[in-house]
Amino acid sequence: MHKTKIKIAEDALDANTTIAQANRADFDRAEVRVVNMMSAPGAGKTSLLERVLHDLDDVRVAVLEGDVQGSLDADRLATLHVPVTQINTDPGFGGECHLDANMVRSAIPSLPLDDIDLLVIENVGNLVCPAEFRVGEDVRVMVASVAEGEDKPLKYPLMFRTCELVLVNKIDLLPHLDFDLDRFLYNVEKVNPGAERILVSARSGEGVEEWREWLVRAAAPAAAPA
Amino acid sequence: MHKTKIKIAEDALDANTTIAQANRADFDRAEVRVVNMMSAPGAGKTSLLERVLHDLDDVRVAVLEGDVQGSLDADRLATLHVPVTQINTDPGFGGECHLDANMVRSAIPSLPLDDIDLLVIENVGNLVCPAEFRVGEDVRVMVASVAEGEDKPLKYPLMFRTCELVLVNKIDLLPHLDFDLDRFLYNVEKVNPGAERILVSARSGEGVEEWREWLVRAAAPAAAPA
Repeated sequence: MHKTKIKIAEDALDANTTIAQANRADFDRAEVRVVNMMSAPGAGKTSLLERVLHDLDDVRVAVLEGDVQGSLDADRLATLHVPVTQINTDPGFGGECHLDANMVRSAIPSLPLDDIDLLVIENVGNLVCPAEFRVGEDVRVMVASVAEGEDKPLKYPLMFRTCELVLVNKIDLLPHLDFDLDRFLYNVEKVNPGAERILVSARSGEGVEEWREWLVRAAAPAAAPA
Repeated sequence: MHKTKIKIAEDALDANTTIAQANRADFDRAEVRVVNMMSAPGAGKTSLLERVLHDLDDVRVAVLEGDVQGSLDADRLATLHVPVTQINTDPGFGGECHLDANMVRSAIPSLPLDDIDLLVIENVGNLVCPAEFRVGEDVRVMVASVAEGEDKPLKYPLMFRTCELVLVNKIDLLPHLDFDLDRFLYNVEKVNPGAERILVSARSGEGVEEWREWLVRAAAPAAAPA
């Protein structure tokens, strides 16, 4: 009988990381790129998706929608004729404030992975815990609303630090706010040097084309990070 | 030797509830009323406190400030010459997205309980977990920004349901938003019938006097719920 030694490293992967890697392997096998989209409540994730999902060139997309309760956002996105799967963190998971890798894993059988190129996971609205749980994504996008104030990168640094793209939303409101955009972008740069930023307004449409093109690029295998 | 029977009820109190009651007992002994203030990130808790804390009639107030990292809000409030104690949930507690009763308990020795009538606890910006953890408060206030959309009571019902007062902030932005105020108030009523609501703008000052008076009343022993 052969013995196999398993080395338990001090930085042994926790359960979430292990499951996230299993998810990622499934996504890779199906050649599906995955975007994990996060923000504070009401920053505009769903509105920004509504703006672009119907027209992603030839990219076939599905959405995995995370909410504590209900399916308000999923219902909105389903009208775009995009496959939407809902995860509620309340009944099954005890009111969790984030998606974790195991919740996403439980949804994989419901996802049409063989028929899509891109999966967008819309996380629970929260700037803390979603950043702590990888779910098998290729890239992370966060939406920051200018109505939230320019100090948010400093107060929730992990969220801003772990994202490849920061969508600065609701810029149509800038004339009506005491919001220092330069200071905000400086704070983003401070916690995440070189992070991509797109200024956007889901309401006015400004920046939406740039966001759409970013998402199309994210769906291309070559564009995904190793 | 006398034997004491301890009945373990099926709904045995969990550790957080036990500690919250211990906090509450300490606050009661010192005759201090406690307001737990919660909201999504950037809804305006600190700005609304800045507006009123310097002028609460004869009420002596202190603030317990909860943040994942940093002391930006505490620094702002300290300029009002109000005693401010900072709790960071990151270094000591592992990046928690809420205050719990034990964190507040750890801060009690730093609080000037004998010299105040009112303690305002500014919770971590998050609409999910803070609602699940009582910390020993008498009343709960949540701030909802109109920039967050009218669906929030339905998406985060526990938060709206467990508050005595909903401060509807940033109403100066209403002319610039697709926000249905009646629908929002209907949604609040749906999850928390009879909840008090104050429409307010920390920026324009509208509603601030009503908010100030509410806080003064909350500090009076007679006004506190049993």
